[in-house]
Amino acid sequence: MTSQIDLWITGGSTYTYLTLNRLADAERAHGVAFRLRPFYLGKIFDDIGRWPFPDGAEKTRYMWRDIERRAVARGLSPKLPAPYPAPNSVLVNQVAALGLRQDWSRDFLLQSYRHWFEDGLLPGDQENLSASLSAVGQDVDTILKAVETEGVHESLIDETGIAQRLGVFGAPMFTVGQELFWGDDRLEDAVAWAKANPD
Amino acid sequence: MTSQIDLWITGGSTYTYLTLNRLADAERAHGVAFRLRPFYLGKIFDDIGRWPFPDGAEKTRYMWRDIERRAVARGLSPKLPAPYPAPNSVLVNQVAALGLRQDWSRDFLLQSYRHWFEDGLLPGDQENLSASLSAVGQDVDTILKAVETEGVHESLIDETGIAQRLGVFGAPMFTVGQELFWGDDRLEDAVAWAKANPD
Repeated sequence: MTSQIDLWITGGSTYTYLTLNRLADAERAHGVAFRLRPFYLGKIFDDIGRWPFPDGAEKTRYMWRDIERRAVARGLSPKLPAPYPAPNSVLVNQVAALGLRQDWSRDFLLQSYRHWFEDGLLPGDQENLSASLSAVGQDVDTILKAVETEGVHESLIDETGIAQRLGVFGAPMFTVGQELFWGDDRLEDAVAWAKANPD
Repeated sequence: MTSQIDLWITGGSTYTYLTLNRLADAERAHGVAFRLRPFYLGKIFDDIGRWPFPDGAEKTRYMWRDIERRAVARGLSPKLPAPYPAPNSVLVNQVAALGLRQDWSRDFLLQSYRHWFEDGLLPGDQENLSASLSAVGQDVDTILKAVETEGVHESLIDETGIAQRLGVFGAPMFTVGQELFWGDDRLEDAVAWAKANPD
């Protein structure tokens, strides 16, 4: 049987916009199902001691242009560069982790990215959060209360530890067993690996 | 007419191994010709203030594994990880720049990468340099003398300035006019752009 493909995501990662927006098509085309695993990538960056895409860097300018070209080629219409970085995106991870228990996580993340990349609303900020939760039929106050009382942060810390032990250092990151595939560019390679190395 | 595609290369870049080894096939398949432009990427890293792939980092481990998977899929047989970093690779750039004037630059670079990735000889080190130059019919002492007397360093400084003004921050980097395409993964996108935006 095709091996499980985990997709490690974090609500403040830019390239994840491309991946989330083609995930359903990729699943249909390849006959696989990606398991979403939100985690605190920022904690790993802090441990490493460096963050990607500093303000004003050529690499950062390139990143936005690269995403724009690829998004347009896939029929998306982002307004880039979007605001960045996203200091409150930690809250997106928490809400997404809670949503996994109730099956609206992926739709919520898609909404969060849409409002970020298409409307300029930072992920995890009040306006984005309310709109994204409302779109998936959830009430922001109820959800934020549940995030605090249902051990979501603790489970994200555990997930981040698992990611770190696997060697995850960025997002989106696909893992199939111990094998890592970094970035939207490696989605197809992750699928091929999962099929060539069945459980 | 299809626009010129420049390929900015530096002799100590790891992913460039993948690109050089498929360049001739890509040219035949797409009916294009890449113009090689050696430059001092290390100078740009020094200016930025950070180098990629620190020793012991998860990202560095991943880089070798990622190159290995892709190389094997393309029929190459590297022994990885290869020694890294390559402090004398500045000399590879100088020899490659000289070779451009005499039309053996690309073959020399392929040899330099082969000895580095397949035999474990650092690029720019005496053993690698002698073998790589010998394979393209050149004598190492004659070439090293010519590098010193023919203004090669100065022309590389100029090229590095051009690269920097274009926003080049890594290698391999393809440029088509002002448009940048970073990494072996973007070879096809660079070709498509050059065709869609003719001179």
